[in-house]
Amino acid sequence: MSHRTVQNLEAQLILVNAYHLYLRPGLDIINELGGVHSFISWSGPILSDSGGFQIYSLSPLTKVKKEGVSFASHLDGTKIFLTPEDVIDIQRVLGTDIMMILDYFCPYPSSKKEARQAAKITTEWAQRSKSHLQTKGLSQLVWGICQGGVYWDLRKQSIEELMAIDFDGYALGGLGIGEPKTQFMEMVERSSSILPEEKPRYLMGIGYIHDIIQAVELGIDFFDCVLPTRNARNGTLFTSTGKIVIKNKKYETDTRPIDEDCNCYTCQNFSRAYLRHLYERQEISSSILNTIHNLHFYLDIFRKIRHSIQSNSLHQLKYSIMNKKEEGEPV
Amino acid sequence: MSHRTVQNLEAQLILVNAYHLYLRPGLDIINELGGVHSFISWSGPILSDSGGFQIYSLSPLTKVKKEGVSFASHLDGTKIFLTPEDVIDIQRVLGTDIMMILDYFCPYPSSKKEARQAAKITTEWAQRSKSHLQTKGLSQLVWGICQGGVYWDLRKQSIEELMAIDFDGYALGGLGIGEPKTQFMEMVERSSSILPEEKPRYLMGIGYIHDIIQAVELGIDFFDCVLPTRNARNGTLFTSTGKIVIKNKKYETDTRPIDEDCNCYTCQNFSRAYLRHLYERQEISSSILNTIHNLHFYLDIFRKIRHSIQSNSLHQLKYSIMNKKEEGEPV
Repeated sequence: MSHRTVQNLEAQLILVNAYHLYLRPGLDIINELGGVHSFISWSGPILSDSGGFQIYSLSPLTKVKKEGVSFASHLDGTKIFLTPEDVIDIQRVLGTDIMMILDYFCPYPSSKKEARQAAKITTEWAQRSKSHLQTKGLSQLVWGICQGGVYWDLRKQSIEELMAIDFDGYALGGLGIGEPKTQFMEMVERSSSILPEEKPRYLMGIGYIHDIIQAVELGIDFFDCVLPTRNARNGTLFTSTGKIVIKNKKYETDTRPIDEDCNCYTCQNFSRAYLRHLYERQEISSSILNTIHNLHFYLDIFRKIRHSIQSNSLHQLKYSIMNKKEEGEPV
Repeated sequence: MSHRTVQNLEAQLILVNAYHLYLRPGLDIINELGGVHSFISWSGPILSDSGGFQIYSLSPLTKVKKEGVSFASHLDGTKIFLTPEDVIDIQRVLGTDIMMILDYFCPYPSSKKEARQAAKITTEWAQRSKSHLQTKGLSQLVWGICQGGVYWDLRKQSIEELMAIDFDGYALGGLGIGEPKTQFMEMVERSSSILPEEKPRYLMGIGYIHDIIQAVELGIDFFDCVLPTRNARNGTLFTSTGKIVIKNKKYETDTRPIDEDCNCYTCQNFSRAYLRHLYERQEISSSILNTIHNLHFYLDIFRKIRHSIQSNSLHQLKYSIMNKKEEGEPV
């Protein structure tokens, strides 16, 4: 995607990752270029994730101490130690509109003891992040991330402690990582019920449409996920009736667009047969056209969600999305 | 490139290759989809190369007989035999606006005997192609390709024979393949001097700007080359002062666009530092943004050439292009 393509799709905000940008190209370069907006020439809103999840999921030798987290770069093994204050400072250099505090990610499954420890350190780091920021005087928004695994008492405590520190928004971290759907939804629903009405709620890393629409009904405002773009590059395309895998031979001479109800550039111009050909030939334009479609599909769902909230019809939208006849796997 | 990006760059015509499309996705599919315009959803003019060059350069076991050419697919080794009539029929299925006859490509260096034989067969095939077409009744234009290596008497004879057959345009094949520049230019100049004024002249496969501008001055109208797009993907970018290799460390914090005189989307929005970062990270957007720039650069040169011909200032344009102070290797 070029920026103008992303803008044409009416994306309202993009996400960058502090961990990845810290490693490459590095802060010196971004600082010299005047921050990430200037570096990438994107004038709209940008959220930077703290990289907590990436440190725990991508990096070898990760070790959390009270003071901060030590890990090795997943690129060249360089040993790095970062405190929550460092992660705030990294995001100050990035100059993003919304920054996330460093949290202590708790994998699934974790014992209650491990989950308690992770939530406890996350709160301490959140407090230190906030104190560190108060010595500055920034226009960037700062959102807290709650942990606590699938233990509601821990998660409740984590949220209450974050709310006492007072952030501009609240994220639920460590969900959608393999726990049963009922536990996932329970955590979302109960968390949502105690979070402040007037501040945005962010369910991190969740991308399945069925999860999104249910989470919105439970009060979630904000999502991020690689799913639409990664699937696009892999040739899995979303439609109003389910997913299609464009490499399948049955699309070889299929003159229909990916989704006959879709008004994206790809569906308005190109057949499944042509998109299959581009995918099979490993043409870069396959990734471009597929990504345009999948991003349009997701952004369109979000437009519909916003409209349905305004017209008080979210519940009907949810059932129309979840009950669609499906071709292939469910979306 | 998506088609709309190519259209925004004001490309007037695109090229497809009969050899590649014959192998993949194959004629059955393209036929069922209604021809190549319909298959790829491009309504503008399309020229199809016959694939002669690809048969001789990509395929193993190529053997030319009087009747046609046998070769193995470079993809899976399938043995294929094509006559010049087959190649016309392939392009009739493609339904392109301009088709090229099958020629017998003559590599450099070739002995005079080999070059004579190649030119002789090329003429025979051109005659058969034309006769085959006359039994049909097509709206597609058909251009001949002359051969003859670097031997002017052979090339002169080849052109005269093609002109006697009467094509809608004439291409010079088998040039720019390693022969000395003086011989290359001699063949272009002398060929051009005997080709009819009122029909387009196509110098096949030539992409260096210095060659193009000189060839235009000698009367050439039409060019094709992978150079701007392949170089873009490899990070070599054209500017009015020479080439730059974007991966070079010196561009790490360079806030300038690729070319300060360029008004393409890439140069209007992005710094060398950002483009270097995208290239180093192997982002697809690196290929996209670089290709936009290189194609704009080339199409802009062609716009300037057309204007200079109209204002009778081609000679000045040639010297302004060829005498530019250069950064890195000459364009």
